[in-house]
Parts: sequence; structure tokens; C-alpha cells
Amino acid sequence: MKINHLTESQQLDTETIFSIFKKADELKISIKDTLDGKILAAIFYEPSTRTRLSFESAMLRLGGNVIGTENAREFSSVSKGESLQDTIKIISSYADIIVLRHFKEGSSKIAASVSSVPVINAGDGSGQHPTQALLDLYTIWKEIGRLDNLTILMVGDLKYGRTVRSLCYLLGKFKNIKIIFISPKHLSIKDDIKDYLKKHSIQFDEQIDLDKYLPKADVVYMTRIQKERMSNGEYNKAKEMYKITEENLALLKNSARLLHPLPHVSEIDLSENIEETDAKVAYFRQAKNGLYVRMALFLYFLK
Amino acid sequence: MKINHLTESQQLDTETIFSIFKKADELKISIKDTLDGKILAAIFYEPSTRTRLSFESAMLRLGGNVIGTENAREFSSVSKGESLQDTIKIISSYADIIVLRHFKEGSSKIAASVSSVPVINAGDGSGQHPTQALLDLYTIWKEIGRLDNLTILMVGDLKYGRTVRSLCYLLGKFKNIKIIFISPKHLSIKDDIKDYLKKHSIQFDEQIDLDKYLPKADVVYMTRIQKERMSNGEYNKAKEMYKITEENLALLKNSARLLHPLPHVSEIDLSENIEETDAKVAYFRQAKNGLYVRMALFLYFLK
Amino acid sequence: MKINHLTESQQLDTETIFSIFKKADELKISIKDTLDGKILAAIFYEPSTRTRLSFESAMLRLGGNVIGTENAREFSSVSKGESLQDTIKIISSYADIIVLRHFKEGSSKIAASVSSVPVINAGDGSGQHPTQALLDLYTIWKEIGRLDNLTILMVGDLKYGRTVRSLCYLLGKFKNIKIIFISPKHLSIKDDIKDYLKKHSIQFDEQIDLDKYLPKADVVYMTRIQKERMSNGEYNKAKEMYKITEENLALLKNSARLLHPLPHVSEIDLSENIEETDAKVAYFRQAKNGLYVRMALFLYFLK
Repeated sequence: MKINHLTESQQLDTETIFSIFKKADELKISIKDTLDGKILAAIFYEPSTRTRLSFESAMLRLGGNVIGTENAREFSSVSKGESLQDTIKIISSYADIIVLRHFKEGSSKIAASVSSVPVINAGDGSGQHPTQALLDLYTIWKEIGRLDNLTILMVGDLKYGRTVRSLCYLLGKFKNIKIIFISPKHLSIKDDIKDYLKKHSIQFDEQIDLDKYLPKADVVYMTRIQKERMSNGEYNKAKEMYKITEENLALLKNSARLLHPLPHVSEIDLSENIEETDAKVAYFRQAKNGLYVRMALFLYFLK
Repeated sequence: MKINHLTESQQLDTETIFSIFKKADELKISIKDTLDGKILAAIFYEPSTRTRLSFESAMLRLGGNVIGTENAREFSSVSKGESLQDTIKIISSYADIIVLRHFKEGSSKIAASVSSVPVINAGDGSGQHPTQALLDLYTIWKEIGRLDNLTILMVGDLKYGRTVRSLCYLLGKFKNIKIIFISPKHLSIKDDIKDYLKKHSIQFDEQIDLDKYLPKADVVYMTRIQKERMSNGEYNKAKEMYKITEENLALLKNSARLLHPLPHVSEIDLSENIEETDAKVAYFRQAKNGLYVRMALFLYFLK
Repeated sequence: MKINHLTESQQLDTETIFSIFKKADELKISIKDTLDGKILAAIFYEPSTRTRLSFESAMLRLGGNVIGTENAREFSSVSKGESLQDTIKIISSYADIIVLRHFKEGSSKIAASVSSVPVINAGDGSGQHPTQALLDLYTIWKEIGRLDNLTILMVGDLKYGRTVRSLCYLLGKFKNIKIIFISPKHLSIKDDIKDYLKKHSIQFDEQIDLDKYLPKADVVYMTRIQKERMSNGEYNKAKEMYKITEENLALLKNSARLLHPLPHVSEIDLSENIEETDAKVAYFRQAKNGLYVRMALFLYFLK
């Protein structure tokens, strides 16, 4: 069933997911479809240059155009007290599709409810980031060659990390998936995700020791401890707990892959040389995949 | 007579106004003219995402391109002490038309005096906002069906509100207009506007009670009390005085229309349902009209 | 020899310089080459509206597109602790060419070392600003008619001023050049430049008195004392020392030209009338030349 907006990753059924992935594969080779004359409004209430540029580049590569703001929170009518609903109502009359990054969970759903054009959630507080999950999943598919029968380690800030949340919702759609959540206790995955996984018969486990589980993994999904989403106390406690080094990278199977939504800081402690030459390090290829997945998504909504 | 810049709404004669309105009507149906290869420089010294995106979308819809800054005050040579004149001289060598939002009254005239390309004033301090006035007038024309024989209530901050000022200057060009200004005493309309209306034989009246005059109105033009342009004392005193609610909206004639330059805050106290279903509420249609009026204006200057 | 990135002006040999200048001449008359579908990423870690808009306009005039950020330092993953290398690696997968302005000397070289697409340095701290030097040199060539046998005064902040540094490196490639550096002692030109000039047999002199040397000059290259790069004490001491007025402008030969990388503040104390009518004042023509030189440079890298 065709969806009108993408606010949560669980909206996507496997058929849609694979049709987007196949389109992304095509777009990597050559761009035959165009979105000439279409306008993307990239509305970022919370700055994120990387994500914004990825969406903007995707639209421009397809022949469309872009309007937007890189810091709506400070620069817009928000500061004058306007509701998100009113802002979106009006912007949806200027553009053909809206990409929204917002600091508050649930914002993209509110936006979708009043927009006359498709709204894509590009991250809403501690909520979701479904296009990131889609490019993560696409990367697993390309790198590992399958989306069933996988053991996946998710590591770091699982409480506030919206990319982990969105990816779990997507993984729930595939068979014989085993997820091992590895985090400090105070940053463990929330109950809504656990409930969803139980409902979809996805096996999961919660652990603290990273190195012990590395040899079992097909995919290691590292995340950054997000300083901006927690107290200093929580941050300092968490940031030194998990690190990928040359030593423990060697514990991974050769066929396994290290993913990260980026930016990474100290949790990835690898030399540039290792990053470039060790095939297990997949996160730069993952970032690049974002462009094609987002192009495919624009075509899905606008073509 | 063709003008080279649009800095004040009174520059526009009725013939030009109607030719722009007819072009806007055409553009709503289909876009036949193009501005391929033309570049708009959207220079905003004061952030206003909505207005900026409206201008940018208008240029892109016509096939042109956009460069600009959403916060020139902080991000540009201004902070290094450069004069507006020098900035505009140079930017006018990069672009085919400039849209300028500035915090200081009179800035767009200064810019126009040195620019080698057309300058459009997109709001200058407590000065004017002529394209807003033009879309306001276009909305009245589309919603009411005429621009003569009208009773118009202008409500709220009439002292600092530049949209009211610009709209008065435009209304001065039509016949049998009656304006009723409704504001707290300390935010009443300035003398330059009153002098202009007298000179053009426009009847006007200054009142304090909103509800009493609602039944007489063809158009109610509500405005926001602009916190950013007055002291806290002035603001607190003024903000609770005027509100449109479901109750007093019912006092309006069925043929009357409620306009607002947006963003609105507490001065509009209507449910989303009323906003969508009551034909009297015209402000979202008004915002949408801005796109077509600005497209028509770009064609006027560049075609 | 074709270069892959432009990080320092000395990378350019005279053959390349003249081929870029000839292309700029052609582009002034008509634009025959296009960069349809190419994407420029304009990544500004330090705001500079003028320089950014010049690059963006250049790319759009050639039919390409632009993504970017006007304040990467605040708005991007930098604030989350990401390395410049990682940022550039990923952005280079979204764009066909990167223009980088950074607050730290040497940044553009770091960027170039990891980028998969050409990187153009648009100013790195007190380092270089090679495209400014290129447009300065182009302006001298157009205004004076030659690039050999010149006496050039460089005035103001020669210690922190990267445009002076980059221009010296370019001038080192021509014959019978004499440079007279005029600055307060605490803002004198650094040794690396002096060493380079000696090595290339360029005559130079360091002086303090401006007026004495004006009659000898073919070119006067004034610069702004950059408040943002020094202490208040240094700034106050320096800012009143050098000024071009109507009086000392008259000391210049008729064939001589006054250049300035702009923005200028008090160091240029000329009326608008003089600026417009006195042919010696070349800095607005210089700024306009930037557009064509940057277009030529994009064609050099992408065509």
C-alpha cells in the first residue's frame, strides 16, 4: 500500500522496502528518472548539515530544486510563537515535498497531519529517523547480501538514539533476526521497542560487554553517545564504555560489517588507513548509500 | 509607468496593480513564462523563513535560481562594519534581482539607490512591506470581488506594523474605501498614513472596540502584536486586547473575510476545524496567494 | 600541469593563470560552456556572505547547482565533535566540487587530502585565499594591462591578511615586480612570504609611511585591519594609521589603481561620487571580476 508520508520506519512494508532498494541500485548506475521543476523544502529546526545536504543533493541530482532553512528554530516564525501546524500548512503551498528535522518527538506526525504534500521525517527528537534506518538496512543488504538470518549488535546510546529505534522497527519485518543490545544500564533500549520486537517474534538480548559478543555478529551498529540529549553525569559515565579499536575489530568475522550513522567521535578509534583498507569498516559506504536511498524515496513519493 | 525597484507600495499605480493581479491569475493555472538562468539574491538581515521561502519558491517555479543568506546581520560583512551600500553594489553584480529584508526603516531605498538590478523591499523595520500589501490586496480582490466600496477594519499593532502601513498606501488608490483603525491608544496608526489617506480622500476612523465594528466590515485585517518591536510593558498591555474567537467571527457578514499577514499567535483563537471550514477565514488562502503575486512581480521586473 | 585542488595560490603556474584569465574574458561576453547537473558544496565554517554568494552565483550562471551551509561551525557535526576529514569524505560523495572556508590555517589541505572531488580554498584562517589572489591579479592585468614591471604597495594588516599572502605568492611568478609592504610594525608581513619572494628574486621593501610611496605605485592594495584576528590593543593602534582620502588618492599616477579585497571600513575614506567617477578606484570592478574568475576556475576543474 502506497503511503503518503514517511514519519516512522514501521510504515514501510517489505515490498516497498525492496522496491526502493532496487531503485537505489538503478540510480547508482544512471539517473533516468527526473523530478524537473519539483521543489523540496528542507526544514531543519535542529541543525544537521550532513543529513540536510544528503537530501538536498538527492533532489538536485534528480533535476529538482531546494528551498529551506538550516536553523528554523532561531530563524523563523517559531520565535514569534507560531505553531508548527501553521508553518507546515504554508510551506506545503510553496513546495512539492517537505523534509523535516525537529527537536521534538512526534513533530513529523503533526506536520504530516496538516501538510498538503508528502512529509519525510529526518529525525524528531528521541523519536525516529526512518530514512537513516532505510539506508542502514540497504547497506546491510548490499554488504551482507541478505536481510534474514542475521545477528546484529546495537551498541551505545540505545535510549536516546533514534536511529537504533527506527532500525529495530525495520528489522522487525524480516525473518530469524537476533538483536543484541549493548549499552550502559542507564541508556538501555526503551520498552516500546522491546514490545514491538516481542510482537514480531524477533529475538533480542540486553548485554553490557561488547567484546564478548563481537565474534557472533554479522553486523555491529555503533552509535555515538549524544552529549546534547543527556546530562553531563550520564555522558561522562557512558562515553568511555564502548570503543572499536584495531584490536577488537579483529574479533569480527571477515564477513561481518561495522556500521555507524555518523558523525562518530571517540567510540570509533581506528586509523584512517584501517578505515580505508579494512573491508569490515562499512560506514563511509553507508553514508554514501544515503544519497541513492533518498533519491529513490523522492521518486517513490513524487513520481 | 514602469518602476525599477519596489520599495514602497504607493509606487504602484492601479494599472500596474491589475496587470500584476491578472498575471498572478494566469500563473495559478499554468506557468508559461520562464526566467531560466535568472538569479534571485534573497538577502535577509532579519530572519523570516516564511517570506524568504515564498520569494525563493516563486523564482524557482519560474525556472530561475536563488542565492542568499537567512541571517545577513550575523553572517556577513555587516559584522565587519561594511555599509549596506557596498554590500548591495557587489551583490547586484552577482544576481539579476535582489529581495531585501532589513531591520532598519528606509534600507530598501538606500539599496535601490546603488543597485544595478531591481530591489524589492521584503520588509524594512517599521517601514513598509509592499509585496505583502500586494498579496493582501489581491486576496481582497479574489475573495470579495472588488477593490472599491469597501469597509476595512485594521486591528492590532498599527504603529509598528509595516504591513498595515503598506496596505493603507495601496488602498488609497481605490474609490469609496472606509478604513476603521482599531488599536490600543499607544499603538495607533502614525500621522504619515493619516495625512496620505486625507490627501487621497479616504475616509478613516480610529476606534478601540473591535466587536462593535465587526458587523460593518467587508474585510477584517488582524495583525500580531510584535513583541520584538516594543517594550515588555507595551506588549503585555496590548496582547490580550484583541482576539478573534468563534463567537465574534459570527458577527461578521457571510461575505466578509478575515485576513492576517501571519504568523498569528493568540490574536486568532479559532480551532483548526473552524479555520478549515468557515469560508470567512481567508488567511491561509492569502498566504498561498503570495506565491503567485511574487511570481508575477518577478516577471514584471525581469521579463 | 593540471592540479586537482586549489589550496594555495603558488600551485598555479603562469600558463594556467593566463588560461583562466582568458576564459574569464570569454565568460564576460557570453557563457558557452555549461556545468549542467554539477553540484557545488559551499561549506563555510566562518561566515562570509560575499565570497559565498560569488562562488554560488558562478556555479549557477554555468547551469550547475549549489548545496551548502553558511555557518558550518555552529550548524554541523563539528559541534558534535566530528573531524573535518570525516565531514569532507562524506560531503565529497554528495557534490562534484567543494568550496571550503575555514577558521583554521591548513584546513583546506587537510580537506583536499581526503576528498574524492576538487577542493577550492576560500580562505583558511590566516593562511591563504587563492581565488581572491587570482581575481586580484586578473584585475591588475585588466586595469594596468600587464603583469610584469609593476610597483605594488600592500597596505595595512599584512600579518593576518591572507589575501596579501596569497597575492604575494602569485606575484612571485612574474618579472620585475617590486612590492612595498606598508604596515604598522606589529602587523608586518611574515617571514615565509619574505623567504618566498627572495627565492623568486622579487624585490621588496618594508615601510611605514603610506603617502610617501603612493606616487611610485602602479597598484595600491589596501586591506582592512581585521578586528576579529587580533587583540583590541593591536586593533586600536592599527586602525587609524592608514587611510585613503581624496587628498592622497590624488598622489597616485593617473594610470595607477586602488584595489581592496573588501569589505572596507574606515581605511577607505572616499565619497560615493569619487568611488564612482575616479577611474583609479578599481575595487568594485575587482569584486565583479571575482564572478568570472570563479566561473573560469569551476570550468578548469570540472570540464
